[in-house]
Amino acid sequence: MAMELSIIGYDPAGSWAKTAAGLEELLSYRNPAGINWINVAGLEDGAFINQLAEQYRIHPLTVEDILNTGQRPKVEEFDEYLFIIFKSITGRQGELVFGQISVVIQGNTVLSFQQSPGDSFDGIRRRIHDNGSKVRRMGADYLAYQLWDAVVDEYFLVLDSLGTVIEDFEDRALDDKDPGFIPDIQKAKQKLLQLRRAIWPLRESLSLLLKLDSPHIGSELEPFFKDLQENAVQAAEVVETYRELINGVIEINYASLSNRMNRVMKVLTIISTLFIPLTFIVGVYGMNFANMPELQSPYAYPIVWAVMILIAAGMLIFFKRRKWF
Amino acid sequence: MAMELSIIGYDPAGSWAKTAAGLEELLSYRNPAGINWINVAGLEDGAFINQLAEQYRIHPLTVEDILNTGQRPKVEEFDEYLFIIFKSITGRQGELVFGQISVVIQGNTVLSFQQSPGDSFDGIRRRIHDNGSKVRRMGADYLAYQLWDAVVDEYFLVLDSLGTVIEDFEDRALDDKDPGFIPDIQKAKQKLLQLRRAIWPLRESLSLLLKLDSPHIGSELEPFFKDLQENAVQAAEVVETYRELINGVIEINYASLSNRMNRVMKVLTIISTLFIPLTFIVGVYGMNFANMPELQSPYAYPIVWAVMILIAAGMLIFFKRRKWF
Amino acid sequence: MAMELSIIGYDPAGSWAKTAAGLEELLSYRNPAGINWINVAGLEDGAFINQLAEQYRIHPLTVEDILNTGQRPKVEEFDEYLFIIFKSITGRQGELVFGQISVVIQGNTVLSFQQSPGDSFDGIRRRIHDNGSKVRRMGADYLAYQLWDAVVDEYFLVLDSLGTVIEDFEDRALDDKDPGFIPDIQKAKQKLLQLRRAIWPLRESLSLLLKLDSPHIGSELEPFFKDLQENAVQAAEVVETYRELINGVIEINYASLSNRMNRVMKVLTIISTLFIPLTFIVGVYGMNFANMPELQSPYAYPIVWAVMILIAAGMLIFFKRRKWF
Amino acid sequence: MAMELSIIGYDPAGSWAKTAAGLEELLSYRNPAGINWINVAGLEDGAFINQLAEQYRIHPLTVEDILNTGQRPKVEEFDEYLFIIFKSITGRQGELVFGQISVVIQGNTVLSFQQSPGDSFDGIRRRIHDNGSKVRRMGADYLAYQLWDAVVDEYFLVLDSLGTVIEDFEDRALDDKDPGFIPDIQKAKQKLLQLRRAIWPLRESLSLLLKLDSPHIGSELEPFFKDLQENAVQAAEVVETYRELINGVIEINYASLSNRMNRVMKVLTIISTLFIPLTFIVGVYGMNFANMPELQSPYAYPIVWAVMILIAAGMLIFFKRRKWF
Amino acid sequence: MAMELSIIGYDPAGSWAKTAAGLEELLSYRNPAGINWINVAGLEDGAFINQLAEQYRIHPLTVEDILNTGQRPKVEEFDEYLFIIFKSITGRQGELVFGQISVVIQGNTVLSFQQSPGDSFDGIRRRIHDNGSKVRRMGADYLAYQLWDAVVDEYFLVLDSLGTVIEDFEDRALDDKDPGFIPDIQKAKQKLLQLRRAIWPLRESLSLLLKLDSPHIGSELEPFFKDLQENAVQAAEVVETYRELINGVIEINYASLSNRMNRVMKVLTIISTLFIPLTFIVGVYGMNFANMPELQSPYAYPIVWAVMILIAAGMLIFFKRRKWF
Repeated sequence: MAMELSIIGYDPAGSWAKTAAGLEELLSYRNPAGINWINVAGLEDGAFINQLAEQYRIHPLTVEDILNTGQRPKVEEFDEYLFIIFKSITGRQGELVFGQISVVIQGNTVLSFQQSPGDSFDGIRRRIHDNGSKVRRMGADYLAYQLWDAVVDEYFLVLDSLGTVIEDFEDRALDDKDPGFIPDIQKAKQKLLQLRRAIWPLRESLSLLLKLDSPHIGSELEPFFKDLQENAVQAAEVVETYRELINGVIEINYASLSNRMNRVMKVLTIISTLFIPLTFIVGVYGMNFANMPELQSPYAYPIVWAVMILIAAGMLIFFKRRKWF
Repeated sequence: MAMELSIIGYDPAGSWAKTAAGLEELLSYRNPAGINWINVAGLEDGAFINQLAEQYRIHPLTVEDILNTGQRPKVEEFDEYLFIIFKSITGRQGELVFGQISVVIQGNTVLSFQQSPGDSFDGIRRRIHDNGSKVRRMGADYLAYQLWDAVVDEYFLVLDSLGTVIEDFEDRALDDKDPGFIPDIQKAKQKLLQLRRAIWPLRESLSLLLKLDSPHIGSELEPFFKDLQENAVQAAEVVETYRELINGVIEINYASLSNRMNRVMKVLTIISTLFIPLTFIVGVYGMNFANMPELQSPYAYPIVWAVMILIAAGMLIFFKRRKWF
Repeated sequence: MAMELSIIGYDPAGSWAKTAAGLEELLSYRNPAGINWINVAGLEDGAFINQLAEQYRIHPLTVEDILNTGQRPKVEEFDEYLFIIFKSITGRQGELVFGQISVVIQGNTVLSFQQSPGDSFDGIRRRIHDNGSKVRRMGADYLAYQLWDAVVDEYFLVLDSLGTVIEDFEDRALDDKDPGFIPDIQKAKQKLLQLRRAIWPLRESLSLLLKLDSPHIGSELEPFFKDLQENAVQAAEVVETYRELINGVIEINYASLSNRMNRVMKVLTIISTLFIPLTFIVGVYGMNFANMPELQSPYAYPIVWAVMILIAAGMLIFFKRRKWF
Repeated sequence: MAMELSIIGYDPAGSWAKTAAGLEELLSYRNPAGINWINVAGLEDGAFINQLAEQYRIHPLTVEDILNTGQRPKVEEFDEYLFIIFKSITGRQGELVFGQISVVIQGNTVLSFQQSPGDSFDGIRRRIHDNGSKVRRMGADYLAYQLWDAVVDEYFLVLDSLGTVIEDFEDRALDDKDPGFIPDIQKAKQKLLQLRRAIWPLRESLSLLLKLDSPHIGSELEPFFKDLQENAVQAAEVVETYRELINGVIEINYASLSNRMNRVMKVLTIISTLFIPLTFIVGVYGMNFANMPELQSPYAYPIVWAVMILIAAGMLIFFKRRKWF
Repeated sequence: MAMELSIIGYDPAGSWAKTAAGLEELLSYRNPAGINWINVAGLEDGAFINQLAEQYRIHPLTVEDILNTGQRPKVEEFDEYLFIIFKSITGRQGELVFGQISVVIQGNTVLSFQQSPGDSFDGIRRRIHDNGSKVRRMGADYLAYQLWDAVVDEYFLVLDSLGTVIEDFEDRALDDKDPGFIPDIQKAKQKLLQLRRAIWPLRESLSLLLKLDSPHIGSELEPFFKDLQENAVQAAEVVETYRELINGVIEINYASLSNRMNRVMKVLTIISTLFIPLTFIVGVYGMNFANMPELQSPYAYPIVWAVMILIAAGMLIFFKRRKWF
């Protein structure tokens, strides 16, 4: 997976986009008058990122955070720039793919670093090249908001498809022969844990951003970030609701299975219990004692049948009265 | 479902109500002196809502929130207006129907947007047309409070009917043959989850509103919004109590079923256990060995009966002493 | 249940008590120099309460709260008075009876509204008429404190009797034939839920009261309300402890029942298992084949017995070694 | 249990200790120059404590708290003194004994009230009489700290012995014949609940004390009370860890019992299942029909044996393949 | 285990390291111009540590905390120094080994106390001796950060290996014959409890440190400690996720075992239930009554077979229809 380097420049009057092979080429494209958006997709080339960071006076700890893709979402203010980390989440063949996205806002420049190339930002690129679009009239801070917003919007796609899976679980919960049910449930629970870890910290990150009063974020962006925060809270709530639904599904499955099992075992046991005393009786008259007077009586056989039928009927009535079946 | 457009104007001296077919007609009815309440029921016509919003200088993000009916309840202050989102909840044929209601308070005008036409506001309309009613003497902020209050009052209707359902569950929990019990319980739990998501955020929204000290809300309205907050907290508490009651009902159901099952199985197993040794004994004397001296004894048969009765009695006494039945 | 109207007046020098039939009579008794305590027991006569409220310039929302007995405990400060709502809890024949008590403190007057007449305040009345008692020397705020304190003290009576019930549960939990156990447990849990809803909000109400720095509450009353808060916290903690104890009791019950059941089933199953192979063997020699050489052998019968005893002993030893019984 | 009254006085230069029979004797011993520590062990004599309290201008609510031994741990500041309540916890024959200790710090005097005489303070007495010890050089606040610290140190003894009990539970959890296991677990859980109620409030009490900036506590004592707070937090954490461990032990017990039970029942049921079809076959040839051609065949008997062995072997292989045993 | 005493000095220009046998030797090596790092590995020699503490005017409570290895992680500011306690965690043969590390920052000196000698700091030593490394250019506060950071980095090694163990549990959960599963799960849960107690308090310690604005920590270190805090939060989150995963694994294990058990028991019981009525029938015709007309009929035997096959087939169809197998 090679690194993809691109730079997009724009101002209210126009826009252009370039891809670059190296740092010097990239920097040569910069346009000091308008907004510059440098996107680095793929973090394999640590040396390059270090050089780029040096160029923009980015703190070594920030570089470390950009390169180490196990970071929690966060917002950090430095003297010369604002640093944001969040996670892109996409579903691919039933698996969740998490990518780390780091954004640095510094004056008129936005640097974004994607763990792997993705198409989350294609809509934004289109809007930048669209004359008269809002993003063209706004600053670097609005571009950063757009990047973040695009990624958070994708969360809901993932959540929706997970919602369908969970609804499906409710039917499967009643089927006691579904061998994959328990592992699938566990997999969905793990996905929800992963989602929670990616989504929950957004709430505090955005609160922090709104409180920071950072010089890198214009005050006219406040409603946008508040809206983003609302979305993040909503996504987090959906995750929690799914967790509760899944627990409910597990409970249903458990109750339904154990209910069915109980009913089956009860019927089977009642059948056995009916016949065991009768089998004893016929056993008695199968004994070979020389002196068993009943055996000679011509009425004994029908009487034994009658007795056995009475016993069976009595037991059935007894069971029925106690509502055992 | 067509959009319904209505405008009501009033001042302490009088009131009038109009329905309009389009924006221009609507705006032409406006009365600059009194309070104007514009109600839009049905959000299908996004273009119309955009035009109306433009007319009232409403932020594009607010319009987005109005049109996207999946919003969380919230209060947002903008420079020129106060924006409130909450949910109407009504029960229809055992299902909960949620509707999003957005309210914009701007000077003497209240704009309200209902997801679908409903009769929640009929009482308020009646009071507006009632000479001498309080709402006629108060401002736009009081009208907004009335709208919100009317909707929150409806929550308690829904909660009451859900309460009856849950009380009903307690009887059903003891019946081990009710096939719909588990799915009904799960459905009620899902309703409670939905209610919680609609009701809980009201608490923070109203705290925020009370802290905001917004110029769009007069200070004489503080006790009213405090009261509304109390109601919201109470509704949220009822939801939580119901959740605990439902969990208790599930526990009762589980305990009662497994208790009954255990007792049944125990009795059945005791019956089997009593007869199995006896069946063995009669089997012994059913063997066809040439040399079985007991078979020839004239007392053997009654002795075998006596032995079997003793064994059975001994087992019964043993079981009884151990309190097995 | 008729409404009971009483007014008590006192100052350090003396005290008097009157009951009144109507508002005018009530007001005529008022003594502007001392403390006046007006107690309204029974809330049926809403019109009367409205008139009384008007007399004391009480906000309509407060009147609504007084009349609607489903309020949460709370403290609300208004310009002219302080408003307190709390719940009286008494046990009657194993049921909890909740009553709403509303108190308005306004200058030298305390208005108290009881949902139903009760004897919670008798002790306070006695102390008021007792020359030299502290309440006589203190203001209206101290009287309000006394009312509240008397009611919170009664909580502990209810909690104590519930504690006895829960201790009793621990014995019943070990008895697997107690049919009322599960419903009784559930009832106790519901009582605890009700108690929690009545007691928990006191903590925030009292914190709020202590923070309010209300002109209606003298600073010398702070230690008293702090003490009341301590009591409320303690009552809330007792409720939580009871909830945990009840959950423990349910667990004990479950474990003990399932343990007993398991042991019984194991013994019964071992008995069956012992005899089933033996019954097979005796069945073999009960077959009527013409050619079964063993049958003719004179030693066959004792040998079969020996084999069966060996098999039974072997199985018993095997079971014993595996510690199955 | 008689009340024990003692007074200890000290200053850097020297120390003395007296026991007194009554209030006047006690007060006569006071030394206005140094630190006076009055210890009252046993709270039976309420009248005496009231007199003593009056002497030191202690608020009636404080006296009530001292005498009512069901208080929660707390710190309360009054104008003339600082009031602290905490609980001593000692283990006696497997039972926890809780005692309430109240401490009043007023200028150079420390009044301590013990619910029952105990030896928790012996170490402190020894240190006071030890020339050159730190307590001799410090003020009344340090003495109060020492009293509290001595009691909190004892918590860890109780927690350690409870820890041993819980470790012991882990072995007992695997033994399915231990009849006292469930009651012992429940008892330990109740102890942990009691401990939590005694220990948790210390954290807020000490936070409060550290925030109070009380004139009765010198600023040089801050690190000591911070240290005490650390200890209280640690004790509270140990209690929580024990609660989790106990829950784990219950789970182990449950899982291990039900695992064993399952395995036993499975083996027993497999044995029964093996023999039931065979018993049926031998039953068939035990029938007395006149026309059963097989019976006459000389090979029938060995063939039946072969068939039965094949059936048994087939079932065993089937069970084995499905990994049923 | 003997105590190991070492002192490392450095400034931007150079560095040196010495080991010392006693206090005087140690102090003689100090270099007043550069940074001095004194490391004490092994806390057996309390007397030595007391002397060292006295030399650096360290509070007796700090010394107590250093020597008592059961402390919670914390940060404490004193007038003359900053005191930090944290835990080193290493895995050795499947067991977690916890060590307490105390750090005192005082001017240009860092004193570190390790519970037992370890190699966590080797990397830092190497960097100190590396000309041009960052640590050489920074102050004592950066060294303290490096020590803490090195230890927190090691947490992730332990967490990673625990993660592998938990993944392994998921396979083992489906195997109902794994005798060590439950004890291993319990062991892992205990490890997570221990880890939580070591890691959680770091979050508040670091928040406190960041708020303290201590003169012992330069402001340029803020991003470093923020980063450390992020790492601590992340470690704490991993611990919580593992706890949830383990609970999920227990649930899977329970569900899978009980599912399998249920299926096995059902099949076995169906086999028994099929044969019990048939065995009764053959028993009937094994009776020896003189008068059993059927016995003489030449068709009776095949008819009985037919009846039995019909009964068996009927039961199988009945069971199949009800989806019992």
